[in-house]
Amino acid sequence: MRTFEKICDLRAFLKSQKRSDLRIGLVPTLGALHWGHAALIKAARRQNETVVVSIFVNPTQFDDPEDFKTYPRDFQSDLAFCERHGVTAVFHPSEAEMYPTPSKTRISVPELTRHLCGAKRPGHFEGVAILVSKLFHIVQPDCAYFGEKDAQQLAIIRRITRDLRFPITIVSVPTVRETDGLAMSSRNALLNPEQRRAAAALNRHLQNAQQLLKSGENGLEKIKTQLIQRIQSESAAEIDYVEIVDAETLQPATAVDRALLIAAAVYFGGVRLIDNFSCNFAKKDES
Amino acid sequence: MRTFEKICDLRAFLKSQKRSDLRIGLVPTLGALHWGHAALIKAARRQNETVVVSIFVNPTQFDDPEDFKTYPRDFQSDLAFCERHGVTAVFHPSEAEMYPTPSKTRISVPELTRHLCGAKRPGHFEGVAILVSKLFHIVQPDCAYFGEKDAQQLAIIRRITRDLRFPITIVSVPTVRETDGLAMSSRNALLNPEQRRAAAALNRHLQNAQQLLKSGENGLEKIKTQLIQRIQSESAAEIDYVEIVDAETLQPATAVDRALLIAAAVYFGGVRLIDNFSCNFAKKDES
Repeated sequence: MRTFEKICDLRAFLKSQKRSDLRIGLVPTLGALHWGHAALIKAARRQNETVVVSIFVNPTQFDDPEDFKTYPRDFQSDLAFCERHGVTAVFHPSEAEMYPTPSKTRISVPELTRHLCGAKRPGHFEGVAILVSKLFHIVQPDCAYFGEKDAQQLAIIRRITRDLRFPITIVSVPTVRETDGLAMSSRNALLNPEQRRAAAALNRHLQNAQQLLKSGENGLEKIKTQLIQRIQSESAAEIDYVEIVDAETLQPATAVDRALLIAAAVYFGGVRLIDNFSCNFAKKDES
Repeated sequence: MRTFEKICDLRAFLKSQKRSDLRIGLVPTLGALHWGHAALIKAARRQNETVVVSIFVNPTQFDDPEDFKTYPRDFQSDLAFCERHGVTAVFHPSEAEMYPTPSKTRISVPELTRHLCGAKRPGHFEGVAILVSKLFHIVQPDCAYFGEKDAQQLAIIRRITRDLRFPITIVSVPTVRETDGLAMSSRNALLNPEQRRAAAALNRHLQNAQQLLKSGENGLEKIKTQLIQRIQSESAAEIDYVEIVDAETLQPATAVDRALLIAAAVYFGGVRLIDNFSCNFAKKDES
Protein backbone atom coordinates (compact mmCIF):
# COMPACT_ATOMS: atom_id res chain seq x y z
CA MET A 1 0.00 0.00 0.00
CA ARG A 2 1.23 3.49 -0.89
CA THR A 3 0.63 6.64 1.15
CA PHE A 4 0.73 10.17 -0.24
CA GLU A 5 0.71 13.56 1.44
CA LYS A 6 1.34 15.67 -1.66
CA ILE A 7 -1.21 16.17 -4.43
CA CYS A 8 1.47 16.12 -7.14
CA ASP A 9 2.84 12.76 -5.94
CA LEU A 10 -0.61 11.18 -5.81
CA ARG A 11 -1.43 12.52 -9.28
CA ALA A 12 1.80 11.10 -10.71
CA PHE A 13 1.03 7.69 -9.20
CA LEU A 14 -2.57 7.70 -10.46
CA LYS A 15 -1.46 8.77 -13.94
CA SER A 16 0.56 5.57 -14.19
CA GLN A 17 -2.46 3.57 -12.97
CA LYS A 18 -4.69 5.17 -15.61
CA ARG A 19 -2.12 4.48 -18.32
CA SER A 20 -2.40 0.82 -17.40
CA ASP A 21 -6.18 1.14 -17.86
CA LEU A 22 -6.86 0.43 -14.20
CA ARG A 23 -10.21 1.66 -12.91
CA ILE A 24 -9.92 3.97 -9.90
CA GLY A 25 -12.35 4.02 -6.96
CA LEU A 26 -12.27 6.82 -4.38
CA VAL A 27 -13.45 6.51 -0.78
CA PRO A 28 -13.33 9.98 0.86
CA THR A 29 -13.17 9.81 4.68
CA LEU A 30 -12.45 11.91 7.74
CA GLY A 31 -10.48 8.99 9.18
CA ALA A 32 -11.36 7.15 12.42
CA LEU A 33 -12.20 4.26 10.13
CA HIS A 34 -14.77 1.64 11.13
CA TRP A 35 -16.84 -1.15 9.54
CA GLY A 36 -18.92 1.42 7.69
CA HIS A 37 -15.78 2.52 5.86
CA ALA A 38 -14.82 -1.12 5.34
CA ALA A 39 -18.09 -1.61 3.43
CA LEU A 40 -17.24 1.41 1.22
CA ILE A 41 -13.73 0.02 0.56
CA LYS A 42 -15.15 -3.43 -0.18
CA ALA A 43 -17.62 -1.97 -2.69
CA ALA A 44 -14.80 0.05 -4.29
CA ARG A 45 -12.57 -3.04 -4.55
CA ARG A 46 -15.34 -4.99 -6.28
CA GLN A 47 -15.60 -2.38 -9.06
CA ASN A 48 -12.04 -1.01 -9.37
CA GLU A 49 -8.49 -2.31 -9.57
CA THR A 50 -7.13 0.76 -7.75
CA VAL A 51 -8.76 1.97 -4.52
CA VAL A 52 -7.79 5.35 -3.05
CA VAL A 53 -8.89 6.23 0.49
CA SER A 54 -8.52 9.89 1.44
CA ILE A 55 -8.13 10.65 5.14
CA PHE A 56 -8.58 14.33 5.92
CA VAL A 57 -10.44 15.96 8.79
CA ASN A 58 -11.77 18.83 6.68
CA PRO A 59 -11.93 21.99 8.82
CA THR A 60 -14.30 23.83 6.46
CA GLN A 61 -17.14 21.35 7.02
CA PHE A 62 -17.11 21.71 10.81
CA ASP A 63 -19.47 24.46 11.91
CA ASP A 64 -18.47 23.88 15.55
CA PRO A 65 -14.74 24.34 16.42
CA GLU A 66 -15.16 22.10 19.49
CA ASP A 67 -16.52 19.30 17.29
CA PHE A 68 -13.50 19.73 14.98
CA LYS A 69 -11.11 19.61 17.93
CA THR A 70 -12.61 16.49 19.51
CA TYR A 71 -13.26 14.59 16.27
CA PRO A 72 -11.47 11.22 16.71
CA ARG A 73 -8.10 10.99 14.95
CA ASP A 74 -5.81 7.95 14.86
CA PHE A 75 -3.83 7.92 11.63
CA GLN A 76 -1.61 4.93 12.42
CA SER A 77 -4.60 2.77 13.21
CA ASP A 78 -6.38 4.04 10.05
CA LEU A 79 -3.33 3.14 7.94
CA ALA A 80 -3.26 -0.40 9.34
CA PHE A 81 -7.04 -0.62 8.70
CA CYS A 82 -6.57 0.39 5.04
CA GLU A 83 -3.69 -2.04 4.60
CA ARG A 84 -5.80 -4.87 6.04
CA HIS A 85 -8.69 -4.04 3.71
CA GLY A 86 -6.61 -4.10 0.53
CA VAL A 87 -6.53 -0.36 -0.21
CA THR A 88 -4.09 0.63 -3.00
CA ALA A 89 -3.24 4.13 -1.82
CA VAL A 90 -4.00 6.39 1.14
CA PHE A 91 -4.09 10.14 0.52
CA HIS A 92 -3.43 12.02 3.74
CA PRO A 93 -2.80 15.69 2.97
CA SER A 94 -2.08 18.44 5.48
CA GLU A 95 -4.42 21.41 5.81
CA ALA A 96 -1.81 23.56 4.04
CA GLU A 97 -1.72 21.12 1.13
CA MET A 98 -5.51 21.10 0.72
CA TYR A 99 -6.06 24.80 1.45
CA PRO A 100 -2.86 26.73 0.58
CA THR A 101 -5.18 29.75 0.61
CA PRO A 102 -8.78 29.76 1.87
CA SER A 103 -11.24 28.92 -0.92
CA LYS A 104 -12.93 32.02 -2.32
CA THR A 105 -15.07 29.75 -4.46
CA ARG A 106 -18.35 28.54 -3.00
CA ILE A 107 -20.45 25.63 -4.16
CA SER A 108 -23.97 25.40 -2.84
CA VAL A 109 -27.21 23.57 -3.57
CA PRO A 110 -29.64 25.79 -1.64
CA GLU A 111 -32.70 23.64 -2.36
CA LEU A 112 -31.05 20.59 -0.81
CA THR A 113 -29.14 22.22 2.04
CA ARG A 114 -31.79 24.32 3.71
CA HIS A 115 -33.36 21.27 5.41
CA LEU A 116 -32.24 18.66 7.95
CA CYS A 117 -28.53 18.86 8.86
CA GLY A 118 -28.00 21.82 6.52
CA ALA A 119 -30.40 23.96 8.54
CA LYS A 120 -28.62 23.03 11.77
CA ARG A 121 -25.02 23.17 10.60
CA PRO A 122 -24.50 26.40 8.61
CA GLY A 123 -21.73 26.09 6.02
CA HIS A 124 -21.31 22.34 6.61
CA PHE A 125 -22.39 21.16 3.17
CA GLU A 126 -20.59 24.02 1.40
CA GLY A 127 -17.43 22.74 3.10
CA VAL A 128 -18.21 19.18 2.02
CA ALA A 129 -18.92 20.32 -1.57
CA ILE A 130 -15.61 22.18 -1.89
CA LEU A 131 -13.60 19.30 -0.41
CA VAL A 132 -15.31 16.61 -2.47
CA SER A 133 -14.89 18.67 -5.67
CA LYS A 134 -11.18 19.08 -4.92
CA LEU A 135 -10.79 15.36 -4.23
CA PHE A 136 -12.65 14.51 -7.44
CA HIS A 137 -10.25 16.75 -9.40
CA ILE A 138 -7.16 15.45 -7.62
CA VAL A 139 -7.97 11.74 -7.89
CA GLN A 140 -10.18 11.80 -11.03
CA PRO A 141 -11.75 8.48 -10.04
CA ASP A 142 -14.13 6.42 -12.16
CA CYS A 143 -16.37 5.86 -9.13
CA ALA A 144 -16.68 7.45 -5.68
CA TYR A 145 -18.27 5.74 -2.68
CA PHE A 146 -20.48 7.33 -0.02
CA GLY A 147 -22.50 5.86 2.84
CA GLU A 148 -26.30 6.01 2.97
CA LYS A 149 -26.13 7.01 6.64
CA ASP A 150 -25.17 10.51 5.45
CA ALA A 151 -28.29 10.68 3.29
CA GLN A 152 -28.31 14.44 2.79
CA GLN A 153 -24.61 14.50 1.89
CA LEU A 154 -25.27 11.73 -0.61
CA ALA A 155 -28.21 13.58 -2.21
CA ILE A 156 -26.14 16.79 -2.48
CA ILE A 157 -23.08 15.08 -3.96
CA ARG A 158 -25.27 13.21 -6.45
CA ARG A 159 -26.84 16.51 -7.50
CA ILE A 160 -23.53 18.39 -7.84
CA THR A 161 -22.04 15.52 -9.82
CA ARG A 162 -25.02 15.54 -12.17
CA ASP A 163 -25.31 19.35 -12.47
CA LEU A 164 -21.60 19.88 -13.14
CA ARG A 165 -21.21 16.75 -15.28
CA PHE A 166 -18.37 15.29 -13.24
CA PRO A 167 -17.26 12.20 -15.22
CA ILE A 168 -17.67 10.10 -12.06
CA THR A 169 -20.22 7.51 -10.94
CA ILE A 170 -21.48 8.05 -7.40
CA VAL A 171 -22.05 4.73 -5.64
CA SER A 172 -24.02 4.61 -2.39
CA VAL A 173 -23.43 1.88 0.16
CA PRO A 174 -26.03 0.79 2.79
CA THR A 175 -25.48 1.80 6.41
CA VAL A 176 -23.52 -0.70 8.46
CA ARG A 177 -24.83 -1.24 11.99
CA GLU A 178 -23.61 -2.54 15.34
CA THR A 179 -25.28 -5.72 16.61
CA ASP A 180 -27.86 -3.58 18.48
CA GLY A 181 -28.58 -1.64 15.27
CA LEU A 182 -26.70 1.58 16.08
CA ALA A 183 -25.41 3.03 12.82
CA MET A 184 -21.59 2.88 12.68
CA SER A 185 -20.06 6.32 13.13
CA SER A 186 -16.68 7.66 14.14
CA ARG A 187 -18.54 9.73 16.71
CA ASN A 188 -19.84 6.60 18.53
CA ALA A 189 -16.39 6.37 20.17
CA LEU A 190 -17.19 9.63 21.99
CA LEU A 191 -20.24 8.17 23.82
CA ASN A 192 -20.05 7.09 27.46
CA PRO A 193 -21.68 3.73 28.32
CA GLU A 194 -25.01 5.26 29.33
CA GLN A 195 -25.19 7.42 26.19
CA ARG A 196 -24.14 4.43 24.12
CA ARG A 197 -27.13 2.42 25.46
CA ALA A 198 -29.55 5.27 24.81
CA ALA A 199 -28.12 5.82 21.28
CA ALA A 200 -29.10 2.28 20.29
CA ALA A 201 -32.76 3.21 20.80
CA LEU A 202 -32.58 5.75 17.95
CA ASN A 203 -32.42 3.13 15.22
CA ARG A 204 -35.19 1.06 16.86
CA HIS A 205 -37.58 4.01 16.92
CA LEU A 206 -36.72 4.97 13.31
CA GLN A 207 -37.23 1.39 12.20
CA ASN A 208 -40.53 1.28 14.03
CA ALA A 209 -41.67 4.36 12.06
CA GLN A 210 -40.51 2.66 8.86
CA GLN A 211 -42.60 -0.39 9.76
CA LEU A 212 -45.67 1.78 10.41
CA LEU A 213 -45.27 3.37 6.95
CA LYS A 214 -44.76 0.00 5.29
CA SER A 215 -47.81 -1.46 7.00
CA GLY A 216 -50.02 1.17 5.34
CA GLU A 217 -50.19 3.94 7.93
CA ASN A 218 -50.17 7.14 5.89
CA GLY A 219 -50.64 9.77 8.56
CA LEU A 220 -47.18 11.27 8.21
CA GLU A 221 -47.68 13.83 10.99
CA LYS A 222 -48.96 11.12 13.31
CA ILE A 223 -45.95 8.89 12.62
CA LYS A 224 -43.57 11.81 13.11
CA THR A 225 -45.20 12.90 16.39
CA GLN A 226 -45.05 9.37 17.75
CA LEU A 227 -41.42 9.03 16.67
CA ILE A 228 -40.49 12.28 18.41
CA GLN A 229 -42.24 11.15 21.61
CA ARG A 230 -40.43 7.81 21.59
CA ILE A 231 -37.00 9.38 21.08
CA GLN A 232 -37.70 12.02 23.76
CA SER A 233 -38.55 9.25 26.22
CA GLU A 234 -34.88 8.15 26.12
CA SER A 235 -33.22 9.78 29.11
CA ALA A 236 -29.97 10.98 27.48
CA ALA A 237 -31.50 11.99 24.11
CA GLU A 238 -32.00 15.56 22.91
CA ILE A 239 -33.58 15.88 19.47
CA ASP A 240 -31.93 18.15 16.88
CA TYR A 241 -34.46 17.24 14.19
CA VAL A 242 -36.83 14.43 13.20
CA GLU A 243 -38.25 14.61 9.68
CA ILE A 244 -39.96 12.53 7.01
CA VAL A 245 -38.82 13.85 3.63
CA ASP A 246 -38.77 13.14 -0.10
CA ALA A 247 -35.59 11.07 -0.52
CA GLU A 248 -34.42 13.00 -3.60
CA THR A 249 -35.49 16.60 -3.01
CA LEU A 250 -35.28 16.40 0.82
CA GLN A 251 -38.47 18.50 0.98
CA PRO A 252 -40.90 17.51 3.78
CA ALA A 253 -43.02 14.61 2.52
CA THR A 254 -46.70 15.38 2.01
CA ALA A 255 -47.90 12.04 0.61
CA VAL A 256 -46.90 8.38 0.72
CA ASP A 257 -46.33 8.03 -3.03
CA ARG A 258 -42.56 8.14 -3.58
CA ALA A 259 -39.22 7.25 -1.99
CA LEU A 260 -39.28 8.69 1.52
CA LEU A 261 -36.62 9.09 4.15
CA ILE A 262 -37.26 9.04 7.89
CA ALA A 263 -34.27 10.96 9.19
CA ALA A 264 -33.16 12.14 12.61
CA ALA A 265 -30.29 13.92 14.31
CA VAL A 266 -30.15 13.47 18.06
CA TYR A 267 -27.68 14.58 20.71
CA PHE A 268 -26.60 12.02 23.29
CA GLY A 269 -24.72 14.14 25.80
CA GLY A 270 -22.61 16.41 23.58
CA VAL A 271 -22.43 13.87 20.76
CA ARG A 272 -24.65 14.46 17.73
CA LEU A 273 -25.63 11.28 15.89
CA ILE A 274 -27.65 10.94 12.69
CA ASP A 275 -29.51 8.00 11.22
CA ASN A 276 -32.21 7.32 8.64
CA PHE A 277 -34.42 4.60 7.21
CA SER A 278 -36.03 4.74 3.78
CA CYS A 279 -39.27 3.45 2.26
CA ASN A 280 -39.90 3.44 -1.46
CA PHE A 281 -43.57 3.92 -2.43
CA ALA A 282 -42.82 5.04 -6.01
CA LYS A 283 -44.92 3.20 -8.60
CA LYS A 284 -42.81 0.80 -10.63
CA ASP A 285 -42.93 2.88 -13.85
CA GLU A 286 -41.74 5.98 -12.01
CA SER A 287 -38.84 4.37 -10.19
CA MET B 1 -12.83 18.50 -38.57
CA ARG B 2 -15.40 16.68 -36.45
CA THR B 3 -18.58 18.20 -35.00
CA PHE B 4 -20.44 16.85 -31.97
CA GLU B 5 -23.82 17.67 -30.50
CA LYS B 6 -23.93 14.92 -27.88
CA ILE B 7 -21.73 14.86 -24.78
CA CYS B 8 -21.31 11.08 -24.93
CA ASP B 9 -20.09 11.20 -28.55
CA LEU B 10 -17.59 13.96 -27.81
CA ARG B 11 -16.33 12.08 -24.74
CA ALA B 12 -15.84 8.88 -26.76
CA PHE B 13 -13.87 10.79 -29.40
CA LEU B 14 -11.70 12.56 -26.80
CA LYS B 15 -11.04 9.30 -24.97
CA SER B 16 -9.41 7.95 -28.11
CA GLN B 17 -7.36 11.17 -28.42
CA LYS B 18 -6.16 10.84 -24.81
CA ARG B 19 -5.25 7.20 -25.36
CA SER B 20 -2.94 8.37 -28.14
CA ASP B 21 -1.37 10.79 -25.62
CA LEU B 22 -2.59 13.83 -27.53
CA ARG B 23 -2.82 17.02 -25.50
CA ILE B 24 -6.25 18.65 -25.58
CA GLY B 25 -6.88 22.40 -25.68
CA LEU B 26 -10.36 23.83 -25.09
CA VAL B 27 -11.62 27.16 -26.44
CA PRO B 28 -15.09 27.87 -24.97
CA THR B 29 -17.11 30.35 -27.06
CA LEU B 30 -20.61 31.71 -27.53
CA GLY B 31 -20.07 31.53 -31.31
CA ALA B 32 -20.14 34.54 -33.67
CA LEU B 33 -16.43 33.86 -34.05
CA HIS B 34 -13.99 36.65 -34.92
CA TRP B 35 -10.24 37.33 -34.89
CA GLY B 36 -10.22 37.37 -31.10
CA HIS B 37 -11.35 33.74 -31.16
CA ALA B 38 -8.80 33.02 -33.90
CA ALA B 39 -6.05 34.15 -31.50
CA LEU B 40 -7.41 31.75 -28.84
CA ILE B 41 -7.49 28.89 -31.35
CA LYS B 42 -3.97 29.74 -32.53
CA ALA B 43 -2.65 29.70 -28.96
CA ALA B 44 -4.42 26.37 -28.35
CA ARG B 45 -2.93 24.86 -31.52
CA ARG B 46 0.57 25.88 -30.48
CA GLN B 47 0.28 23.93 -27.21
CA ASN B 48 -2.02 21.01 -28.06
CA GLU B 49 -2.45 18.42 -30.79
CA THR B 50 -6.23 18.36 -30.33
CA VAL B 51 -8.20 21.63 -30.23
CA VAL B 52 -11.86 21.61 -29.21
CA VAL B 53 -13.99 24.73 -29.75
CA SER B 54 -17.32 24.76 -27.93
CA ILE B 55 -20.06 26.91 -29.46
CA PHE B 56 -22.99 27.40 -27.12
CA VAL B 57 -24.98 30.56 -26.40
CA ASN B 58 -25.36 29.84 -22.71
CA PRO B 59 -28.77 31.09 -21.52
CA THR B 60 -27.85 31.05 -17.82
CA GLN B 61 -25.18 33.74 -18.23
CA PHE B 62 -27.52 36.25 -19.86
CA ASP B 63 -29.14 38.47 -17.25
CA ASP B 64 -31.13 40.24 -20.00
CA PRO B 65 -33.47 38.07 -22.14
CA GLU B 66 -33.34 40.66 -24.95
CA ASP B 67 -29.54 40.43 -25.02
CA PHE B 68 -29.83 36.61 -25.23
CA LYS B 69 -32.35 36.90 -28.08
CA THR B 70 -30.31 39.35 -30.15
CA TYR B 71 -26.88 37.80 -29.47
CA PRO B 72 -25.41 37.13 -32.95
CA ARG B 73 -25.66 33.49 -34.09
CA ASP B 74 -24.33 32.06 -37.36
CA PHE B 75 -23.38 28.44 -36.87
CA GLN B 76 -22.54 27.63 -40.50
CA SER B 77 -20.16 30.55 -40.72
CA ASP B 78 -18.63 29.58 -37.33
CA LEU B 79 -18.10 26.02 -38.57
CA ALA B 80 -16.28 27.26 -41.68
CA PHE B 81 -14.22 29.59 -39.47
CA CYS B 82 -13.15 26.67 -37.23
CA GLU B 83 -12.33 24.50 -40.23
CA ARG B 84 -10.18 27.28 -41.70
CA HIS B 85 -8.33 27.72 -38.42
CA GLY B 86 -7.40 24.07 -38.00
CA VAL B 87 -9.77 23.15 -35.17
CA THR B 88 -9.98 19.39 -34.45
CA ALA B 89 -13.52 19.24 -33.11
CA VAL B 90 -16.47 21.59 -32.63
CA PHE B 91 -18.84 20.88 -29.73
CA HIS B 92 -22.23 22.39 -30.41
CA PRO B 93 -24.75 21.08 -27.89
CA SER B 94 -28.43 21.99 -27.66
CA GLU B 95 -29.82 23.64 -24.53
CA ALA B 96 -31.49 20.34 -23.62
CA GLU B 97 -28.15 18.53 -23.89
CA MET B 98 -26.35 21.01 -21.62
CA TYR B 99 -29.24 21.55 -19.19
CA PRO B 100 -31.48 18.45 -19.20
CA THR B 101 -32.74 19.88 -15.90
CA PRO B 102 -31.95 23.36 -14.53
CA SER B 103 -28.82 23.35 -12.39
CA LYS B 104 -29.63 23.35 -8.67
CA THR B 105 -25.92 23.67 -7.98
CA ARG B 106 -24.49 27.16 -7.74
CA ILE B 107 -20.84 28.18 -8.00
CA SER B 108 -19.93 31.66 -6.89
CA VAL B 109 -16.87 33.70 -5.99
CA PRO B 110 -18.53 36.57 -4.13
CA GLU B 111 -15.31 38.52 -3.56
CA LEU B 112 -14.62 38.64 -7.30
CA THR B 113 -18.14 39.03 -8.63
CA ARG B 114 -19.52 41.89 -6.60
CA HIS B 115 -17.55 44.45 -8.65
CA LEU B 116 -17.48 45.62 -12.28
CA CYS B 117 -19.66 43.51 -14.61
CA GLY B 118 -20.75 41.26 -11.73
CA ALA B 119 -22.43 44.18 -9.97
CA LYS B 120 -24.23 45.16 -13.17
CA ARG B 121 -25.20 41.73 -14.46
CA PRO B 122 -26.68 39.72 -11.56
CA GLY B 123 -26.17 35.97 -12.02
CA HIS B 124 -23.94 36.40 -15.08
CA PHE B 125 -20.76 34.97 -13.59
CA GLU B 126 -22.64 32.19 -11.76
CA GLY B 127 -23.93 31.17 -15.19
CA VAL B 128 -20.43 31.34 -16.64
CA ALA B 129 -19.00 29.32 -13.72
CA ILE B 130 -21.55 26.52 -14.10
CA LEU B 131 -21.09 26.31 -17.88
CA VAL B 132 -17.29 26.41 -17.76
CA SER B 133 -17.23 23.76 -15.01
CA LYS B 134 -19.47 21.52 -17.12
CA LEU B 135 -17.29 22.06 -20.20
CA PHE B 136 -14.16 21.30 -18.17
CA HIS B 137 -15.71 18.03 -16.99
CA ILE B 138 -17.01 17.10 -20.43
CA VAL B 139 -13.82 17.85 -22.38
CA GLN B 140 -11.23 17.33 -19.59
CA PRO B 141 -8.70 19.45 -21.47
CA ASP B 142 -5.05 19.95 -20.52
CA CYS B 143 -5.37 23.69 -21.16
CA ALA B 144 -8.29 26.09 -21.61
CA TYR B 145 -8.02 29.45 -23.40
CA PHE B 146 -9.71 32.71 -22.43
CA GLY B 147 -9.36 36.27 -23.73
CA GLU B 148 -7.98 39.10 -21.61
CA LYS B 149 -10.77 41.36 -22.84
CA ASP B 150 -13.07 39.53 -20.41
CA ALA B 151 -10.73 40.33 -17.52
CA GLN B 152 -13.21 39.65 -14.72
CA GLN B 153 -14.30 36.34 -16.26
CA LEU B 154 -10.63 35.38 -16.54
CA ALA B 155 -9.89 36.28 -12.89
CA ILE B 156 -12.94 34.29 -11.72
CA ILE B 157 -12.15 31.22 -13.81
CA ARG B 158 -8.53 31.29 -12.65
CA ARG B 159 -9.72 31.44 -9.04
CA ILE B 160 -12.27 28.62 -9.41
CA THR B 161 -9.72 26.45 -11.19
CA ARG B 162 -7.21 27.02 -8.38
CA ASP B 163 -9.71 26.68 -5.50
CA LEU B 164 -11.28 23.49 -6.84
CA ARG B 165 -7.97 22.05 -8.11
CA PHE B 166 -9.20 21.49 -11.65
CA PRO B 167 -6.32 19.62 -13.37
CA ILE B 168 -6.34 22.24 -16.13
CA THR B 169 -4.01 25.11 -17.05
CA ILE B 170 -5.81 28.38 -17.76
CA VAL B 171 -4.11 30.30 -20.56
CA SER B 172 -4.98 33.96 -21.17
CA VAL B 173 -4.62 35.51 -24.60
CA PRO B 174 -4.19 39.28 -25.22
CA THR B 175 -7.13 41.23 -26.61
CA VAL B 176 -7.24 41.41 -30.40
CA ARG B 177 -8.23 44.83 -31.79
CA GLU B 178 -9.60 46.31 -35.00
CA THR B 179 -7.28 48.70 -36.87
CA ASP B 180 -8.78 51.62 -34.91
CA GLY B 181 -8.16 49.81 -31.63
CA LEU B 182 -11.73 48.69 -30.88
CA ALA B 183 -11.55 45.39 -28.98
CA MET B 184 -12.93 42.55 -31.08
CA SER B 185 -16.32 41.41 -29.82
CA SER B 186 -19.23 39.50 -31.26
CA ARG B 187 -21.38 42.41 -30.12
CA ASN B 188 -19.56 44.87 -32.43
CA ALA B 189 -21.70 43.49 -35.26
CA LEU B 190 -24.76 45.00 -33.54
CA LEU B 191 -23.42 48.61 -33.75
CA ASN B 192 -24.72 51.04 -36.39
CA PRO B 193 -22.05 53.14 -38.21
CA GLU B 194 -22.34 56.10 -35.84
CA GLN B 195 -22.12 53.88 -32.73
CA ARG B 196 -19.24 52.00 -34.31
CA ARG B 197 -17.28 55.27 -34.71
CA ALA B 198 -17.99 56.33 -31.12
CA ALA B 199 -17.06 52.88 -29.80
CA ALA B 200 -13.55 53.23 -31.16
CA ALA B 201 -12.98 56.17 -28.79
CA LEU B 202 -13.35 53.87 -25.76
CA ASN B 203 -10.01 52.12 -26.26
CA ARG B 204 -8.26 55.45 -26.98
CA HIS B 205 -9.45 56.95 -23.69
CA LEU B 206 -8.55 53.80 -21.73
CA GLN B 207 -5.12 53.73 -23.34
CA ASN B 208 -4.68 57.39 -22.48
CA ALA B 209 -5.37 56.60 -18.82
CA GLN B 210 -2.86 53.73 -19.03
CA GLN B 211 -0.26 56.16 -20.40
CA LEU B 212 -0.92 58.60 -17.56
CA LEU B 213 -0.36 55.83 -15.01
CA LYS B 214 2.77 54.63 -16.78
CA SER B 215 4.17 58.17 -16.91
CA GLY B 216 4.08 58.39 -13.12
CA GLU B 217 0.72 60.03 -12.43
CA ASN B 218 -0.51 58.32 -9.27
CA GLY B 219 -3.69 60.23 -8.52
CA LEU B 220 -6.03 57.34 -9.23
CA GLU B 221 -9.22 59.32 -8.59
CA LYS B 222 -7.97 62.10 -10.88
CA ILE B 223 -7.22 59.66 -13.69
CA LYS B 224 -10.60 57.99 -13.26
CA THR B 225 -12.51 61.29 -13.24
CA GLN B 226 -10.72 62.44 -16.39
CA LEU B 227 -11.39 59.10 -18.06
CA ILE B 228 -15.09 59.30 -17.23
CA GLN B 229 -15.29 62.85 -18.60
CA ARG B 230 -13.59 61.85 -21.84
CA ILE B 231 -15.88 58.86 -22.41
CA GLN B 232 -18.96 60.92 -21.55
CA SER B 233 -17.95 63.47 -24.18
CA GLU B 234 -18.61 60.85 -26.88
CA SER B 235 -22.10 61.49 -28.17
CA ALA B 236 -23.43 57.91 -28.34
CA ALA B 237 -21.71 56.66 -25.16
CA GLU B 238 -23.46 55.86 -21.88
CA ILE B 239 -21.17 54.65 -19.10
CA ASP B 240 -22.08 51.49 -17.20
CA TYR B 241 -18.91 51.59 -15.09
CA VAL B 242 -15.35 52.90 -15.23
CA GLU B 243 -12.96 51.52 -12.58
CA ILE B 244 -9.29 51.14 -11.74
CA VAL B 245 -8.89 47.89 -9.79
CA ASP B 246 -6.36 45.38 -8.47
CA ALA B 247 -5.95 42.98 -11.40
CA GLU B 248 -6.17 39.85 -9.22
CA THR B 249 -8.67 40.70 -6.48
CA LEU B 250 -10.69 43.19 -8.62
CA GLN B 251 -10.99 45.42 -5.54
CA PRO B 252 -10.78 49.19 -6.25
CA ALA B 253 -7.09 50.15 -6.44
CA THR B 254 -5.86 52.40 -3.64
CA ALA B 255 -2.16 52.63 -4.56
CA VAL B 256 0.02 52.29 -7.64
CA ASP B 257 2.07 49.35 -6.34
CA ARG B 258 0.74 46.24 -8.04
CA ALA B 259 -0.85 44.98 -11.26
CA LEU B 260 -3.79 47.29 -11.99
CA LEU B 261 -6.61 47.09 -14.46
CA ILE B 262 -8.34 50.11 -15.98
CA ALA B 263 -11.69 48.66 -16.97
CA ALA B 264 -14.86 50.05 -18.46
CA ALA B 265 -18.28 48.94 -19.67
CA VAL B 266 -20.05 51.42 -21.91
CA TYR B 267 -23.33 51.32 -23.82
CA PHE B 268 -23.31 52.53 -27.41
CA GLY B 269 -27.01 52.64 -28.23
CA GLY B 270 -28.33 49.41 -26.78
CA VAL B 271 -25.01 47.60 -27.20
CA ARG B 272 -22.87 47.10 -24.10
CA LEU B 273 -19.15 46.87 -24.80
CA ILE B 274 -16.31 46.20 -22.34
CA ASP B 275 -12.60 46.83 -22.59
CA ASN B 276 -9.59 47.12 -20.30
CA PHE B 277 -5.91 47.99 -20.22
CA SER B 278 -3.48 46.81 -17.56
CA CYS B 279 -0.36 48.27 -15.92
CA ASN B 280 1.92 46.20 -13.74
CA PHE B 281 3.61 48.15 -10.94
CA ALA B 282 4.42 45.08 -8.82
CA LYS B 283 8.04 44.98 -7.67
CA LYS B 284 9.97 42.26 -9.48
CA ASP B 285 10.26 39.99 -6.40
CA GLU B 286 6.52 40.10 -5.83
CA SER B 287 5.49 39.35 -9.36
